[in-house]
Amino acid sequence: MTTFELTKEYVEKIEAAIEQKDEKMLMAEMEELYPADIASILLELDGEPAHYLITLVDTETGAEILSYIEPEDRKRFIKERFTVEEIAKYVNLFDSDDAVDLLNEQTIEVREKVIALIEDREQARFIIDLLHYPEDVAGGLMQKELIKVNTNWTVSECVEEIRRQAEDVEKVYAVYVVDDDQKLKGIVSLKRIILARKNTKIENIVDEEIVYVETTRPAEEVAEIMQRYDLEAIPVVNTLGRLLGRITIDDVVDFITDKAEEDIQVMAGITGEAEEDDSVWDLAKARLPWLIVGVIGSLLAATVIGRFEDEFKKVAALAAFIPIMGSTGGNVGIQTSSLIVQSLAEKSGITTSLGQRLFKIILVALVNGIIIGSMAGLYVYLSGETQLFFVVCISLLSVVVLASFTGTVTPLLLDKLGINPAIASGPFITTANDIIGIGTYLMIANLLLHL
Amino acid sequence: MTTFELTKEYVEKIEAAIEQKDEKMLMAEMEELYPADIASILLELDGEPAHYLITLVDTETGAEILSYIEPEDRKRFIKERFTVEEIAKYVNLFDSDDAVDLLNEQTIEVREKVIALIEDREQARFIIDLLHYPEDVAGGLMQKELIKVNTNWTVSECVEEIRRQAEDVEKVYAVYVVDDDQKLKGIVSLKRIILARKNTKIENIVDEEIVYVETTRPAEEVAEIMQRYDLEAIPVVNTLGRLLGRITIDDVVDFITDKAEEDIQVMAGITGEAEEDDSVWDLAKARLPWLIVGVIGSLLAATVIGRFEDEFKKVAALAAFIPIMGSTGGNVGIQTSSLIVQSLAEKSGITTSLGQRLFKIILVALVNGIIIGSMAGLYVYLSGETQLFFVVCISLLSVVVLASFTGTVTPLLLDKLGINPAIASGPFITTANDIIGIGTYLMIANLLLHL
Repeated sequence: MTTFELTKEYVEKIEAAIEQKDEKMLMAEMEELYPADIASILLELDGEPAHYLITLVDTETGAEILSYIEPEDRKRFIKERFTVEEIAKYVNLFDSDDAVDLLNEQTIEVREKVIALIEDREQARFIIDLLHYPEDVAGGLMQKELIKVNTNWTVSECVEEIRRQAEDVEKVYAVYVVDDDQKLKGIVSLKRIILARKNTKIENIVDEEIVYVETTRPAEEVAEIMQRYDLEAIPVVNTLGRLLGRITIDDVVDFITDKAEEDIQVMAGITGEAEEDDSVWDLAKARLPWLIVGVIGSLLAATVIGRFEDEFKKVAALAAFIPIMGSTGGNVGIQTSSLIVQSLAEKSGITTSLGQRLFKIILVALVNGIIIGSMAGLYVYLSGETQLFFVVCISLLSVVVLASFTGTVTPLLLDKLGINPAIASGPFITTANDIIGIGTYLMIANLLLHL
Repeated sequence: MTTFELTKEYVEKIEAAIEQKDEKMLMAEMEELYPADIASILLELDGEPAHYLITLVDTETGAEILSYIEPEDRKRFIKERFTVEEIAKYVNLFDSDDAVDLLNEQTIEVREKVIALIEDREQARFIIDLLHYPEDVAGGLMQKELIKVNTNWTVSECVEEIRRQAEDVEKVYAVYVVDDDQKLKGIVSLKRIILARKNTKIENIVDEEIVYVETTRPAEEVAEIMQRYDLEAIPVVNTLGRLLGRITIDDVVDFITDKAEEDIQVMAGITGEAEEDDSVWDLAKARLPWLIVGVIGSLLAATVIGRFEDEFKKVAALAAFIPIMGSTGGNVGIQTSSLIVQSLAEKSGITTSLGQRLFKIILVALVNGIIIGSMAGLYVYLSGETQLFFVVCISLLSVVVLASFTGTVTPLLLDKLGINPAIASGPFITTANDIIGIGTYLMIANLLLHL
């Protein structure tokens, strides 16, 4: 099949069938679809019909469907309709990493009840192990399901192990080789296993030049490493080098896209993970913090401007250039800080010194400041406000240079303090640069015009 | 090994060894490293030493190293130092998709010479095939290397095919099954092949429920599909359903991160793919277009304000609230448009109507507008400018509502026109909202104060 397109008509058809409890039709429809697609249908239904639909398919498919629903939606869905027994039935069939994600969304009470009810006790042990790790490190991303063989085994023993685990480990990619102490020695790709003779020893075909991470490695770095070395799975070890689990590329891709979405929301001044279909109040709340920061900043600017009231009475045209100073300060600040944030994220290991960075950035600012300063100067000249010519040109140049400076220093400082530097490309820096820009302008005006 | 960290000291050590032509030491060092890591060292060296270093390793490793270098850097590096014969030698060993990427970076003349010199004529044919596709569709992302078997074959014939192609197809993941017309029938995972009996017919173990794309599918959608269904590779077919190639997850991951970086640059008002280590002039150029848009916008605002010069002479305090109107307009506009852009990118198939969207967004705007309007009102009251109380409160509320409206409509309009709606979260909309905010404020002031 190509890919499934969810339409309003289709959802209405399914809703009608649920209404009439037309099990036969519904089961036939679900049979045709992938679990990921059924998950997207559930999101369009109310709690009760959605719950009914998921209980119609077999438990295995149901578990897969649940694993495809986003955390926030799943949390609500499960809380409203599922008994702990039902949750345990599905979690029993989850991959261990997904199981932990789902349990982390529940209250501690529900979590403990569910773990006690899980039928497969190995799975329960896996989950208890994984619950120790924070969500944003390698340990929190890994799954326990993998094929592990001893370096002394033969290829046919290895194939037997794959057969034994075939049901638990859906995607194999490669077999991990450990020594008698469970220490990771290397990997053997499935291709290699297919092409080797049955009685070949694993130690003769193991690839020992492999990349692995420790459980404490931050998730960002895991993503960067898997991307750099083009890996579809990476083994995770403890400090002793013992193999504990593996991280698969699908989880890392989800992590990368979530991270990118978060960065964009930070830039746009939205807190939390707002989505257009959240409630009015949630949406308002997600926007308020930064709007309030912006308002406080602007009221500070208002106070600054208020001090120059007499000057405005004398040269009313001064007011006309408040917006250009504010918005240029904001624009230049964002441009500069987002390049710095980007280079911090890529961290090549070799870091440019602060002095070199600033020198270059000030050069760029001078070039751009002179160009846009001349444009504004021309406007002033043509509009006949010639007394403001030097005030506007010099102020604009200063604003560009100053905003470049704060746009460089702020993200670097935040990074040093362990705060996400992406915040520096958001409304905070814009507001700060707004005020700095307007303040600079008024001071220069005051100096040059002897008001 | 864990992962390689590139330090200044290490680069200096390598530079010194190149200076002294210490081949033995260099080859020993390179032996220890992954191609991806050698690629990052090359980027720290000048053209001549970098070229020397890559000629020291065997051609296969050299080809891998080149495949890990970013397009822009590679283009410069190759242009400066490589003969067409050298390029052909490396391209001969590339995966076909990487080969096409590299050739697309060259001039048509170089491209044709290189293709004529490629030793492996099958590879040359692959490349010529792939050069037809634009870079941003499935055909432009796919590689021709894959294992293809006929539905009538047995497992052992299939294993023979894997053996035959083992060298060309580095990562296999799964075997693609076609009929006598080369039409894609399904896939067989390597796990399944390992566990099957040798004389089992492929048609008995083929998984026919697979997801594929046509060559013309946009790259964004391919990324979304592979992510939705957790695929590590997806087959690409032509309109007749014939199997032409496959796209692997590593290329899609690169696409996703490039896309995210681009979106952030668009939001920050930077054109082209600027990096902090570009030249001063390149950096200045990347920022200028949006700065100029901002300046023109602000000068328009200056003209609007200029018309109210008499009002400022009468009520100088009016000037103090110009920044709050401009920046609130800008902030609300960005918040709104980036949520819309995000929901456009996720496109769930079921689209909310424009009316519903606007209704909800206006509600959110009213909630926030009343809250920040009251804050500003309190400030006005406390600062003693009571005559401006209603002007500021009503203006701020109107600005929030208006900016929410333009922030919703602009990205939807751009999307309809086939323009990247992310532009609407950039300086363009901020500037527009700045002007609208200030204009609204001055008109309301004029009305209410009867100036």
